[in-house]
Amino acid sequence: MAQVAVVLSGCGVYDGAEIHEAVLTLLYLDKAGAQVQCFAPDKPQAHVVNHLTGQPAPEESRNVLVESARIARGEIKPLSELNMDFFDAVIFPGGFGAAKNLCTFASDGGDCQIEPDAQRVIEEAVEEGKVIGAICIAPALVARALKGKERKPIVTIGTDAAAAGALRAMGSENLPKSVNEIAVDEKNKIVTTPAYMLGPSISHVSLGIEKLVAQVLSMI
Amino acid sequence: MAQVAVVLSGCGVYDGAEIHEAVLTLLYLDKAGAQVQCFAPDKPQAHVVNHLTGQPAPEESRNVLVESARIARGEIKPLSELNMDFFDAVIFPGGFGAAKNLCTFASDGGDCQIEPDAQRVIEEAVEEGKVIGAICIAPALVARALKGKERKPIVTIGTDAAAAGALRAMGSENLPKSVNEIAVDEKNKIVTTPAYMLGPSISHVSLGIEKLVAQVLSMI
Repeated sequence: MAQVAVVLSGCGVYDGAEIHEAVLTLLYLDKAGAQVQCFAPDKPQAHVVNHLTGQPAPEESRNVLVESARIARGEIKPLSELNMDFFDAVIFPGGFGAAKNLCTFASDGGDCQIEPDAQRVIEEAVEEGKVIGAICIAPALVARALKGKERKPIVTIGTDAAAAGALRAMGSENLPKSVNEIAVDEKNKIVTTPAYMLGPSISHVSLGIEKLVAQVLSMI
Repeated sequence: MAQVAVVLSGCGVYDGAEIHEAVLTLLYLDKAGAQVQCFAPDKPQAHVVNHLTGQPAPEESRNVLVESARIARGEIKPLSELNMDFFDAVIFPGGFGAAKNLCTFASDGGDCQIEPDAQRVIEEAVEEGKVIGAICIAPALVARALKGKERKPIVTIGTDAAAAGALRAMGSENLPKSVNEIAVDEKNKIVTTPAYMLGPSISHVSLGIEKLVAQVLSMI
Protein backbone atom coordinates (compact mmCIF):
# COMPACT_ATOMS: atom_id res chain seq x y z
CA MET A 1 0.00 0.00 0.00
CA ALA A 2 1.42 3.36 -1.03
CA GLN A 3 2.22 5.70 1.87
CA VAL A 4 1.52 9.30 0.89
CA ALA A 5 2.03 12.48 2.90
CA VAL A 6 -0.23 15.44 2.07
CA VAL A 7 1.12 18.79 3.26
CA LEU A 8 -1.55 21.39 4.01
CA SER A 9 -1.00 25.10 4.63
CA GLY A 10 -4.19 26.24 6.37
CA CYS A 11 -7.84 26.09 5.32
CA GLY A 12 -9.03 28.48 2.63
CA VAL A 13 -7.76 29.64 -0.75
CA TYR A 14 -6.72 33.17 0.27
CA ASP A 15 -4.71 32.42 3.42
CA GLY A 16 -4.34 28.65 3.52
CA ALA A 17 -4.64 25.45 1.52
CA GLU A 18 -7.15 25.64 -1.34
CA ILE A 19 -9.94 23.51 0.09
CA HIS A 20 -11.20 21.95 -3.16
CA GLU A 21 -7.69 21.01 -4.26
CA ALA A 22 -6.88 19.49 -0.86
CA VAL A 23 -10.13 17.50 -0.66
CA LEU A 24 -9.82 16.24 -4.25
CA THR A 25 -6.27 15.11 -3.50
CA LEU A 26 -7.52 13.15 -0.48
CA LEU A 27 -10.43 11.75 -2.53
CA TYR A 28 -8.36 10.35 -5.38
CA LEU A 29 -5.67 9.00 -3.05
CA ASP A 30 -8.28 7.20 -0.96
CA LYS A 31 -10.06 5.85 -4.05
CA ALA A 32 -6.73 4.41 -5.22
CA GLY A 33 -6.21 2.69 -1.86
CA ALA A 34 -3.25 4.81 -0.75
CA GLN A 35 -2.53 5.27 2.94
CA VAL A 36 -2.61 9.01 3.61
CA GLN A 37 -1.23 11.15 6.44
CA CYS A 38 -1.74 14.91 6.48
CA PHE A 39 0.86 17.33 7.84
CA ALA A 40 1.07 21.11 8.30
CA PRO A 41 3.52 23.49 9.96
CA ASP A 42 2.71 24.32 13.59
CA LYS A 43 3.08 28.10 13.37
CA PRO A 44 0.93 31.21 12.91
CA GLN A 45 -0.53 31.88 9.47
CA ALA A 46 1.10 34.77 7.56
CA HIS A 47 -2.27 36.48 7.98
CA VAL A 48 -6.02 35.79 8.05
CA VAL A 49 -8.21 36.78 5.11
CA ASN A 50 -11.99 37.24 5.38
CA HIS A 51 -13.06 35.01 2.47
CA LEU A 52 -16.42 36.79 2.12
CA THR A 53 -14.88 40.21 1.47
CA GLY A 54 -11.44 39.10 0.29
CA GLN A 55 -9.91 41.59 2.73
CA PRO A 56 -7.26 40.82 5.38
CA ALA A 57 -8.49 40.59 8.97
CA PRO A 58 -5.46 42.03 10.79
CA GLU A 59 -7.06 41.63 14.22
CA GLU A 60 -7.19 37.84 13.80
CA SER A 61 -4.45 35.24 14.23
CA ARG A 62 -4.76 31.56 13.34
CA ASN A 63 -2.38 28.60 13.46
CA VAL A 64 -1.61 26.76 10.20
CA LEU A 65 -1.72 23.28 11.78
CA VAL A 66 -4.93 23.95 13.72
CA GLU A 67 -6.75 25.32 10.65
CA SER A 68 -5.41 22.57 8.38
CA ALA A 69 -6.93 20.09 10.84
CA ARG A 70 -10.36 21.22 9.57
CA ILE A 71 -9.63 19.73 6.16
CA ALA A 72 -8.05 16.63 7.72
CA ARG A 73 -10.93 16.06 10.20
CA GLY A 74 -8.38 16.22 13.03
CA GLU A 75 -6.10 13.52 11.58
CA ILE A 76 -2.97 15.62 11.07
CA LYS A 77 0.58 15.94 12.42
CA PRO A 78 3.12 18.77 12.61
CA LEU A 79 5.23 19.09 9.45
CA SER A 80 8.34 18.79 11.67
CA GLU A 81 7.38 15.12 12.18
CA LEU A 82 7.29 14.29 8.46
CA ASN A 83 10.19 11.94 7.71
CA MET A 84 10.24 10.92 4.06
CA ASP A 85 11.91 7.61 5.00
CA PHE A 86 8.42 6.40 5.90
CA PHE A 87 6.59 7.72 2.82
CA ASP A 88 6.62 6.92 -0.88
CA ALA A 89 5.36 10.30 -2.00
CA VAL A 90 4.42 13.77 -0.79
CA ILE A 91 1.75 16.00 -2.31
CA PHE A 92 1.34 19.75 -1.82
CA PRO A 93 -2.13 21.13 -2.68
CA GLY A 94 -2.21 24.81 -3.67
CA GLY A 95 -3.93 27.88 -2.30
CA PHE A 96 -2.19 31.05 -1.15
CA GLY A 97 -1.15 29.17 1.99
CA ALA A 98 1.45 27.30 -0.07
CA ALA A 99 2.84 30.69 -1.15
CA LYS A 100 2.36 32.52 2.17
CA ASN A 101 2.78 29.93 4.95
CA LEU A 102 5.10 27.32 3.36
CA CYS A 103 7.16 29.93 1.53
CA THR A 104 6.86 33.65 0.79
CA PHE A 105 6.40 33.38 -2.98
CA ALA A 106 3.13 35.37 -2.87
CA SER A 107 4.97 38.48 -1.69
CA ASP A 108 8.59 37.89 -2.72
CA GLY A 109 8.35 35.92 -6.00
CA GLY A 110 11.67 34.44 -7.12
CA ASP A 111 13.41 35.90 -4.05
CA CYS A 112 11.12 34.08 -1.62
CA GLN A 113 12.08 32.42 1.66
CA ILE A 114 10.92 28.90 2.49
CA GLU A 115 9.69 27.21 5.67
CA PRO A 116 12.64 25.04 6.83
CA ASP A 117 10.58 21.86 7.19
CA ALA A 118 9.14 22.26 3.68
CA GLN A 119 12.70 22.71 2.38
CA ARG A 120 13.88 19.61 4.25
CA VAL A 121 10.96 17.42 3.14
CA ILE A 122 11.32 18.33 -0.55
CA GLU A 123 15.09 17.79 -0.45
CA GLU A 124 14.65 14.44 1.32
CA ALA A 125 12.10 13.37 -1.26
CA VAL A 126 14.36 14.16 -4.21
CA GLU A 127 17.44 12.64 -2.58
CA GLU A 128 15.59 9.43 -1.69
CA GLY A 129 13.87 9.09 -5.07
CA LYS A 130 10.41 9.64 -3.60
CA VAL A 131 7.66 11.20 -5.72
CA ILE A 132 6.55 14.83 -5.28
CA GLY A 133 3.14 16.13 -6.38
CA ALA A 134 2.48 19.88 -6.43
CA ILE A 135 -0.79 21.57 -7.37
CA CYS A 136 -1.69 25.12 -8.46
CA ILE A 137 0.86 27.57 -6.99
CA ALA A 138 2.69 24.85 -4.99
CA PRO A 139 5.17 24.13 -7.83
CA ALA A 140 6.72 27.50 -6.85
CA LEU A 141 7.42 26.02 -3.42
CA VAL A 142 9.13 23.00 -5.00
CA ALA A 143 11.11 25.27 -7.33
CA ARG A 144 12.26 27.32 -4.34
CA ALA A 145 13.32 24.23 -2.39
CA LEU A 146 15.34 22.91 -5.34
CA LYS A 147 16.85 26.28 -6.34
CA GLY A 148 20.44 25.80 -7.41
CA LYS A 149 20.25 22.00 -7.64
CA GLU A 150 21.99 20.36 -10.55
CA ARG A 151 18.93 18.70 -12.09
CA LYS A 152 16.65 21.57 -13.09
CA PRO A 153 13.06 20.86 -11.97
CA ILE A 154 10.42 20.81 -14.72
CA VAL A 155 6.97 21.88 -13.54
CA THR A 156 3.80 23.58 -14.68
CA ILE A 157 2.23 26.57 -13.02
CA GLY A 158 -0.28 26.97 -15.83
CA THR A 159 0.05 29.76 -18.35
CA ASP A 160 0.68 32.82 -16.14
CA ALA A 161 3.70 34.63 -17.58
CA ALA A 162 4.71 36.43 -14.38
CA ALA A 163 4.59 33.26 -12.29
CA ALA A 164 6.48 31.36 -14.98
CA GLY A 165 9.15 34.08 -14.99
CA ALA A 166 9.55 33.84 -11.22
CA LEU A 167 9.94 30.06 -11.53
CA ARG A 168 12.64 30.53 -14.15
CA ALA A 169 14.38 32.98 -11.84
CA MET A 170 14.58 30.16 -9.29
CA GLY A 171 16.04 27.79 -11.88
CA SER A 172 12.96 25.74 -12.80
CA GLU A 173 11.46 25.21 -16.21
CA ASN A 174 7.74 25.91 -16.64
CA LEU A 175 5.73 23.84 -19.11
CA PRO A 176 2.48 25.62 -20.06
CA LYS A 177 -0.33 23.13 -19.39
CA SER A 178 -4.12 23.19 -19.35
CA VAL A 179 -6.17 22.61 -16.20
CA ASN A 180 -6.89 19.02 -17.22
CA GLU A 181 -3.22 18.24 -17.83
CA ILE A 182 -0.15 17.41 -15.75
CA ALA A 183 3.57 18.05 -16.20
CA VAL A 184 5.85 15.13 -15.39
CA ASP A 185 9.53 15.59 -14.46
CA GLU A 186 10.74 12.01 -14.80
CA LYS A 187 14.26 12.67 -13.49
CA ASN A 188 13.26 14.48 -10.30
CA LYS A 189 9.96 12.55 -9.99
CA ILE A 190 7.89 15.71 -9.77
CA VAL A 191 4.26 15.82 -10.99
CA THR A 192 2.39 19.13 -11.24
CA THR A 193 -0.99 20.46 -12.45
CA PRO A 194 -2.31 24.05 -12.72
CA ALA A 195 -5.69 23.51 -10.96
CA TYR A 196 -7.07 26.89 -9.80
CA MET A 197 -4.16 28.77 -11.41
CA LEU A 198 -6.48 28.28 -14.39
CA GLY A 199 -9.79 26.92 -13.08
CA PRO A 200 -12.45 27.92 -13.83
CA SER A 201 -14.43 25.47 -11.72
CA ILE A 202 -14.10 22.41 -9.50
CA SER A 203 -14.98 19.88 -12.21
CA HIS A 204 -12.14 21.20 -14.40
CA VAL A 205 -9.70 21.24 -11.50
CA SER A 206 -10.68 17.69 -10.55
CA LEU A 207 -9.50 16.35 -13.93
CA GLY A 208 -5.92 17.51 -13.46
CA ILE A 209 -5.76 16.46 -9.81
CA GLU A 210 -7.12 12.99 -10.61
CA LYS A 211 -4.37 12.61 -13.24
CA LEU A 212 -1.73 13.97 -10.87
CA VAL A 213 -2.62 11.48 -8.14
CA ALA A 214 -2.62 8.57 -10.60
CA GLN A 215 0.76 9.65 -11.99
CA VAL A 216 2.29 10.12 -8.54
CA LEU A 217 1.17 6.64 -7.50
CA SER A 218 2.41 5.11 -10.75
CA MET A 219 5.92 6.54 -10.20
CA ILE A 220 6.34 5.03 -6.72
CA MET B 1 -29.59 24.11 -16.67
CA ALA B 2 -30.55 23.05 -13.15
CA GLN B 3 -30.30 25.81 -10.54
CA VAL B 4 -29.15 24.39 -7.21
CA ALA B 5 -28.65 26.14 -3.88
CA VAL B 6 -26.09 24.63 -1.50
CA VAL B 7 -26.52 25.71 2.12
CA LEU B 8 -23.32 25.71 4.18
CA SER B 9 -23.02 26.06 7.95
CA GLY B 10 -19.41 27.04 8.52
CA CYS B 11 -16.13 25.36 7.59
CA GLY B 12 -15.08 22.26 9.53
CA VAL B 13 -16.77 19.09 10.73
CA TYR B 14 -16.91 19.94 14.45
CA ASP B 15 -18.34 23.47 14.31
CA GLY B 16 -19.36 24.00 10.68
CA ALA B 17 -20.09 22.29 7.39
CA GLU B 18 -18.22 19.00 6.91
CA ILE B 19 -15.65 20.10 4.34
CA HIS B 20 -15.38 16.83 2.37
CA GLU B 21 -19.16 16.52 2.09
CA ALA B 22 -19.52 20.13 0.96
CA VAL B 23 -16.74 19.90 -1.63
CA LEU B 24 -17.99 16.57 -2.99
CA THR B 25 -21.47 18.08 -3.35
CA LEU B 26 -20.01 20.99 -5.34
CA LEU B 27 -17.90 18.58 -7.42
CA TYR B 28 -20.73 16.30 -8.53
CA LEU B 29 -23.09 19.22 -9.17
CA ASP B 30 -20.48 20.94 -11.34
CA LYS B 31 -19.64 17.71 -13.18
CA ALA B 32 -23.36 17.33 -13.98
CA GLY B 33 -23.49 20.87 -15.37
CA ALA B 34 -25.74 22.31 -12.65
CA GLN B 35 -25.60 26.03 -11.85
CA VAL B 36 -24.68 26.29 -8.17
CA GLN B 37 -25.04 29.12 -5.65
CA CYS B 38 -23.84 28.71 -2.06
CA PHE B 39 -25.61 30.29 0.91
CA ALA B 40 -25.03 30.42 4.67
CA PRO B 41 -26.60 32.28 7.60
CA ASP B 42 -24.93 35.60 8.44
CA LYS B 43 -24.62 35.07 12.20
CA PRO B 44 -22.07 33.93 14.79
CA GLN B 45 -21.24 30.22 14.96
CA ALA B 46 -22.65 28.39 18.00
CA HIS B 47 -19.01 28.02 19.02
CA VAL B 48 -15.52 27.45 17.60
CA VAL B 49 -13.81 24.06 17.95
CA ASN B 50 -10.05 23.56 17.65
CA HIS B 51 -10.03 20.73 15.10
CA LEU B 52 -6.53 19.61 16.12
CA THR B 53 -7.50 18.92 19.75
CA GLY B 54 -11.24 18.50 19.30
CA GLN B 55 -11.76 20.94 22.18
CA PRO B 56 -13.92 24.11 22.12
CA ALA B 57 -12.06 27.42 21.85
CA PRO B 58 -14.33 29.63 23.97
CA GLU B 59 -12.17 32.72 23.45
CA GLU B 60 -12.84 32.64 19.69
CA SER B 61 -15.87 33.83 17.73
CA ARG B 62 -16.44 33.26 14.02
CA ASN B 63 -19.26 34.10 11.60
CA VAL B 64 -21.01 31.24 9.77
CA LEU B 65 -21.22 33.08 6.44
CA VAL B 66 -17.62 34.31 6.55
CA GLU B 67 -16.24 30.84 7.36
CA SER B 68 -18.49 29.14 4.80
CA ALA B 69 -17.00 31.50 2.21
CA ARG B 70 -13.74 29.52 2.56
CA ILE B 71 -15.42 26.45 1.05
CA ALA B 72 -17.22 28.56 -1.57
CA ARG B 73 -14.05 30.49 -2.55
CA GLY B 74 -15.89 33.73 -1.74
CA GLU B 75 -18.89 32.99 -3.99
CA ILE B 76 -21.59 32.88 -1.35
CA LYS B 77 -24.68 34.83 -0.24
CA PRO B 78 -26.55 35.23 3.04
CA LEU B 79 -29.16 32.52 3.59
CA SER B 80 -31.75 35.28 4.05
CA GLU B 81 -31.43 35.97 0.31
CA LEU B 82 -32.23 32.37 -0.74
CA ASN B 83 -35.61 32.43 -2.50
CA MET B 84 -36.59 28.95 -3.68
CA ASP B 85 -38.63 30.51 -6.54
CA PHE B 86 -35.31 30.86 -8.36
CA PHE B 87 -33.92 27.37 -7.62
CA ASP B 88 -34.86 23.83 -8.61
CA ALA B 89 -33.24 22.17 -5.62
CA VAL B 90 -31.46 22.86 -2.34
CA ILE B 91 -28.77 20.65 -0.80
CA PHE B 92 -27.58 20.71 2.82
CA PRO B 93 -24.16 19.09 3.43
CA GLY B 94 -23.61 17.75 6.95
CA GLY B 95 -21.11 18.44 9.69
CA PHE B 96 -21.94 19.60 13.19
CA GLY B 97 -22.66 23.05 11.75
CA ALA B 98 -25.93 21.71 10.34
CA ALA B 99 -26.86 20.60 13.86
CA LYS B 100 -25.38 23.57 15.74
CA ASN B 101 -25.70 26.61 13.45
CA LEU B 102 -28.73 25.74 11.28
CA CYS B 103 -30.61 24.08 14.15
CA THR B 104 -29.78 22.96 17.69
CA PHE B 105 -30.14 19.20 17.10
CA ALA B 106 -26.61 18.50 18.39
CA SER B 107 -27.55 19.70 21.87
CA ASP B 108 -31.35 19.43 21.95
CA GLY B 109 -32.17 16.37 19.82
CA GLY B 110 -35.85 16.04 18.95
CA ASP B 111 -36.64 19.22 20.91
CA CYS B 112 -34.28 21.35 18.82
CA GLN B 113 -34.84 24.89 17.58
CA ILE B 114 -34.23 25.85 13.95
CA GLU B 115 -32.71 28.87 12.22
CA PRO B 116 -35.72 30.77 10.77
CA ASP B 117 -34.23 31.04 7.26
CA ALA B 118 -33.50 27.31 7.17
CA GLN B 119 -37.09 26.65 8.24
CA ARG B 120 -38.43 29.00 5.55
CA VAL B 121 -36.25 27.57 2.76
CA ILE B 122 -37.18 23.95 3.51
CA GLU B 123 -40.89 24.79 3.76
CA GLU B 124 -40.73 26.77 0.50
CA ALA B 125 -38.99 23.86 -1.23
CA VAL B 126 -41.63 21.32 -0.16
CA GLU B 127 -44.55 23.64 -0.93
CA GLU B 128 -43.18 24.47 -4.39
CA GLY B 129 -42.26 20.87 -5.27
CA LYS B 130 -38.54 21.63 -5.35
CA VAL B 131 -36.04 18.89 -4.50
CA ILE B 132 -34.20 18.76 -1.15
CA GLY B 133 -30.92 16.93 -0.62
CA ALA B 134 -29.58 16.40 2.91
CA ILE B 135 -26.32 14.72 3.85
CA CYS B 136 -25.02 13.14 7.07
CA ILE B 137 -26.71 14.82 10.07
CA ALA B 138 -28.57 17.38 7.90
CA PRO B 139 -31.67 15.14 7.54
CA ALA B 140 -32.34 16.05 11.19
CA LEU B 141 -32.60 19.68 10.08
CA VAL B 142 -35.11 18.74 7.39
CA ALA B 143 -37.08 16.63 9.87
CA ARG B 144 -37.20 19.57 12.28
CA ALA B 145 -38.38 21.97 9.58
CA LEU B 146 -41.18 19.60 8.52
CA LYS B 147 -42.20 18.58 12.07
CA GLY B 148 -45.96 18.23 12.26
CA LYS B 149 -46.52 18.33 8.49
CA GLU B 150 -49.10 15.96 7.06
CA ARG B 151 -46.79 14.03 4.73
CA LYS B 152 -44.25 12.35 7.03
CA PRO B 153 -40.70 12.86 5.69
CA ILE B 154 -38.74 9.69 4.95
CA VAL B 155 -34.98 10.09 5.37
CA THR B 156 -31.84 8.22 6.32
CA ILE B 157 -29.43 9.26 9.03
CA GLY B 158 -27.53 5.98 8.75
CA THR B 159 -27.85 3.33 11.41
CA ASP B 160 -27.42 5.31 14.65
CA ALA B 161 -30.29 4.29 16.94
CA ALA B 162 -30.28 7.45 19.08
CA ALA B 163 -30.32 9.78 16.08
CA ALA B 164 -33.05 7.69 14.45
CA GLY B 165 -35.10 7.91 17.64
CA ALA B 166 -34.77 11.69 17.71
CA LEU B 167 -35.90 11.83 14.07
CA ARG B 168 -38.96 9.73 14.91
CA ALA B 169 -39.71 12.07 17.81
CA MET B 170 -39.88 14.89 15.23
CA GLY B 171 -42.27 12.86 13.06
CA SER B 172 -39.86 11.58 10.39
CA GLU B 173 -39.22 8.01 9.37
CA ASN B 174 -35.58 6.82 9.27
CA LEU B 175 -34.54 4.23 6.71
CA PRO B 176 -31.29 2.51 7.74
CA LYS B 177 -28.92 2.88 4.78
CA SER B 178 -25.24 2.21 4.08
CA VAL B 179 -22.74 4.96 3.30
CA ASN B 180 -22.92 4.17 -0.43
CA GLU B 181 -26.73 4.34 -0.49
CA ILE B 182 -29.41 7.03 -0.57
CA ALA B 183 -32.95 7.22 0.79
CA VAL B 184 -35.54 8.72 -1.56
CA ASP B 185 -38.79 10.27 -0.32
CA GLU B 186 -40.71 10.50 -3.60
CA LYS B 187 -43.69 12.38 -2.16
CA ASN B 188 -41.75 15.14 -0.43
CA LYS B 189 -38.88 15.01 -2.95
CA ILE B 190 -36.23 14.55 -0.27
CA VAL B 191 -32.98 12.66 -0.96
CA THR B 192 -30.60 11.76 1.89
CA THR B 193 -27.37 9.82 2.43
CA PRO B 194 -25.48 8.95 5.67
CA ALA B 195 -21.97 10.09 4.57
CA TYR B 196 -19.78 10.63 7.66
CA MET B 197 -22.56 9.43 10.00
CA LEU B 198 -21.02 6.13 8.86
CA GLY B 199 -17.82 6.92 6.94
CA PRO B 200 -15.23 5.59 7.35
CA SER B 201 -13.36 7.53 4.68
CA ILE B 202 -13.79 10.06 1.88
CA SER B 203 -13.96 7.48 -0.92
CA HIS B 204 -16.88 5.74 0.82
CA VAL B 205 -18.65 9.04 1.50
CA SER B 206 -18.18 10.12 -2.12
CA LEU B 207 -20.23 7.16 -3.39
CA GLY B 208 -23.37 8.18 -1.50
CA ILE B 209 -22.98 11.88 -2.28
CA GLU B 210 -22.48 11.17 -5.99
CA LYS B 211 -25.72 9.15 -5.96
CA LEU B 212 -27.53 11.83 -3.97
CA VAL B 213 -26.58 14.58 -6.42
CA ALA B 214 -27.62 12.45 -9.41
CA GLN B 215 -30.95 11.60 -7.76
CA VAL B 216 -31.65 15.23 -6.79
CA LEU B 217 -31.00 16.37 -10.36
CA SER B 218 -33.16 13.55 -11.79
CA MET B 219 -36.14 14.63 -9.67
CA ILE B 220 -36.12 18.25 -10.85
